[in-house]
Amino acid sequence: MADPRPSHDIVIAGAGLAGALLATSLGRAGHRVRLFERRMDPRRADAESGRSINLAISVRGLHALASVGLEEAVLADAVRMPGRMVHQHGAETFTPYSRDPDRAINSVSRSGLNRMLVESAAATPGVELVFEARCVDAEFDEHARPAAIFEFPDGRRERVDGDLVVGADGAFSAVREAMRRTARFDFSQSWLAAGYKELAIPPADDASGPHGRFRLDPNALHIWPHGGSMMIALPNADGSFTGTLFWPFEGEHSFGTLDGASDAEIMAFFERHYPDAVPHMPDLLADWHANPTSALVTMRSRPWHRGRAVLLGDAAHAIVPFYGQGANASFEDCEALADAIASHPTDLDAAIAAYEDERIDNANAIADLALDQFIDMRDRAGDRRHRLAKRGSQLLGAIVPSLWTPLYDMVSFSRIPYATAVAKAERQARVLRTIATIALPAAIIAALLTFILTWS
Amino acid sequence: MADPRPSHDIVIAGAGLAGALLATSLGRAGHRVRLFERRMDPRRADAESGRSINLAISVRGLHALASVGLEEAVLADAVRMPGRMVHQHGAETFTPYSRDPDRAINSVSRSGLNRMLVESAAATPGVELVFEARCVDAEFDEHARPAAIFEFPDGRRERVDGDLVVGADGAFSAVREAMRRTARFDFSQSWLAAGYKELAIPPADDASGPHGRFRLDPNALHIWPHGGSMMIALPNADGSFTGTLFWPFEGEHSFGTLDGASDAEIMAFFERHYPDAVPHMPDLLADWHANPTSALVTMRSRPWHRGRAVLLGDAAHAIVPFYGQGANASFEDCEALADAIASHPTDLDAAIAAYEDERIDNANAIADLALDQFIDMRDRAGDRRHRLAKRGSQLLGAIVPSLWTPLYDMVSFSRIPYATAVAKAERQARVLRTIATIALPAAIIAALLTFILTWS
Repeated sequence: MADPRPSHDIVIAGAGLAGALLATSLGRAGHRVRLFERRMDPRRADAESGRSINLAISVRGLHALASVGLEEAVLADAVRMPGRMVHQHGAETFTPYSRDPDRAINSVSRSGLNRMLVESAAATPGVELVFEARCVDAEFDEHARPAAIFEFPDGRRERVDGDLVVGADGAFSAVREAMRRTARFDFSQSWLAAGYKELAIPPADDASGPHGRFRLDPNALHIWPHGGSMMIALPNADGSFTGTLFWPFEGEHSFGTLDGASDAEIMAFFERHYPDAVPHMPDLLADWHANPTSALVTMRSRPWHRGRAVLLGDAAHAIVPFYGQGANASFEDCEALADAIASHPTDLDAAIAAYEDERIDNANAIADLALDQFIDMRDRAGDRRHRLAKRGSQLLGAIVPSLWTPLYDMVSFSRIPYATAVAKAERQARVLRTIATIALPAAIIAALLTFILTWS
Repeated sequence: MADPRPSHDIVIAGAGLAGALLATSLGRAGHRVRLFERRMDPRRADAESGRSINLAISVRGLHALASVGLEEAVLADAVRMPGRMVHQHGAETFTPYSRDPDRAINSVSRSGLNRMLVESAAATPGVELVFEARCVDAEFDEHARPAAIFEFPDGRRERVDGDLVVGADGAFSAVREAMRRTARFDFSQSWLAAGYKELAIPPADDASGPHGRFRLDPNALHIWPHGGSMMIALPNADGSFTGTLFWPFEGEHSFGTLDGASDAEIMAFFERHYPDAVPHMPDLLADWHANPTSALVTMRSRPWHRGRAVLLGDAAHAIVPFYGQGANASFEDCEALADAIASHPTDLDAAIAAYEDERIDNANAIADLALDQFIDMRDRAGDRRHRLAKRGSQLLGAIVPSLWTPLYDMVSFSRIPYATAVAKAERQARVLRTIATIALPAAIIAALLTFILTWS
């Protein structure tokens, strides 16, 4: 029996994480999906493997992956990170992300996950993939079908129209740029004063250490906090870690500090600031010279559509990586858009409106949290009182779970919308302050009364 | 005798107000200047006269115009506006902009001023003008001379390099767009929920009224406040006024309200909300249908340069028109850039750095003030207490001028940097609050003491 819901003709620009997942979802829902990707087919033997970036996939991302049956496969290649390991003064201190030891974020390889999602899209009936097709423009005249313009390596351009065009073409999205040039489209791009550079921590030469083939505890996100600068390392399933420096471009302990430095000076700098990490980075100097220093941007857009062209993922909201929520938030976009189309099967405009209502404020909330988390990791992670406060918050959540949920738990281990989580955390903090304000005088009065009654 | 200062080869994209003034200043300082403009030469008989927009030129703009000898000529065609005339409930209420009756802002025609500035640039030795040359891109590789790419009506493109490229090509600047695509260039565009539409108030049919050939008092900026919406009118030297509706796009009293309305409904709406203005707008319906409804944007950039390409005026900072400071701020940019080049005659990089230091924070400050002024005009102008508070602030400035200067005076009638004016106004308000907090209990205590001493 035919599905009673109408099938839409959907054009998706970008087969990154979000575009590929959305294509699978929409294809499974019975729509015709054409998915275009700038890069080469990642399934080809000669495809570039991409950067070695890790993602931290948590509940939100897993929920979306489960909706297309990929949760198990992704977790099979992931490494569990139930907490942070802070490296300071030669010591390691572990702080769990949650009081519940079963809760962990999962270190996943971006390129591996992308390949899995592209394979899934390709295996979905109704989904057609076209590679090496770079989106260069979009059209969204309200009186015509929306279209995306793609350019091929030979310079040929093709205009592809559909019932709906989805711009999932990343932070530098051509679909968004076409919208940004129209009146009443709000947009901002704000760059961090810090950049990043990757350094590899390969598997151990032999597996006789305390962590086997891993040089560090694999079940943690490692942080070397240094005030304004830090290094982090995330485990990979093959026993390696991906280390990343997040340093300011200029000033103390910055990329500028080592600009033009000799190899001996570079090594001396690392020996001084990251002494326990240096033995695990045999390729430090080679990586330092070979890997680029890249910048980090937060981008916000409002609205996320023009006519029947709509934005999704980084194209709509690029965020900094510090909360490990970039991919999770983009996967939530995919679920929200697929759900909105399912809820308004015959009215794409209503679906787009519902999708925007659901997502824009939440994307802005996680953008703010991600910026704040950088300060948390680099400046506060090494602070003993801060770690105690985190433990205190987790304890409170265990004692009065109905009244208190730590923000980190809400963001990483629940599907509470980001903006709701932020509002709830602020409300909790206000209540706690009020209680403290009342409790302190009350305790003093009680002590005084006790003293008077005892001695009178 | 030759000028000992080196002459730079300067390429300016855009002969609008800022570009034309800058070209004159730099030409007079002995530099070679090539000034390119998208539009036709405004001196040609067949040139489009452009929109009828008025500008409010005040002290900052006049100072910059005086530096190239144009102050007198501009003021000769201007109409003085020493205050606002608020139209409400059938009555007119005048509020001066300053306690000093000699202080006024000046209503000037944008197209007339632009033409005067272009003529001035063309008459300056060393300045070469090229019209119908649209800037489409810019290059600012640090190892080469900066360049701007221009496109001519026949499609031909020309790359023009120089020692310095100035992007004075307006809010949708191609020079800025080239910079915006680079890493670590911060940018935002934020559109107002309100748009604008112009309506003409022609000169009176006969000059027998109280204001002669003017239908309204010419020496005022007229405001019809209506909460979220308003109309304003600025006088022109020919006896006409330029009326402008600033209404939200949607909601009550919005452009949406009259979307698809009949002529009778449109007239009824104006008769109801602007009864004293309707008799002065004989072409109301024709203007309503012919004139576009345009949107209003605030744009911010940081930095204002890449290599030796630099932004100026709306290209760097588009602001909303409500404080009448857009052109004034752009003229200040011109003075600051010309001064910085004069102060660093052999080091353009240092000149660019000094110019940015001088201008970016001030441009952000006037952008904020202009947004707030919209609320002041449409929501608060009709409020009696608000007018009293303005008078009180002016009175305070007259009594203790060393301690108190009203913000409007600092912005419109001084050359105090915008950010400094805002900081000073905030400091003044803080001091006043503190005094009020101390004075009120002190007055109560004094009254009590008097009572006790009198009756005891």
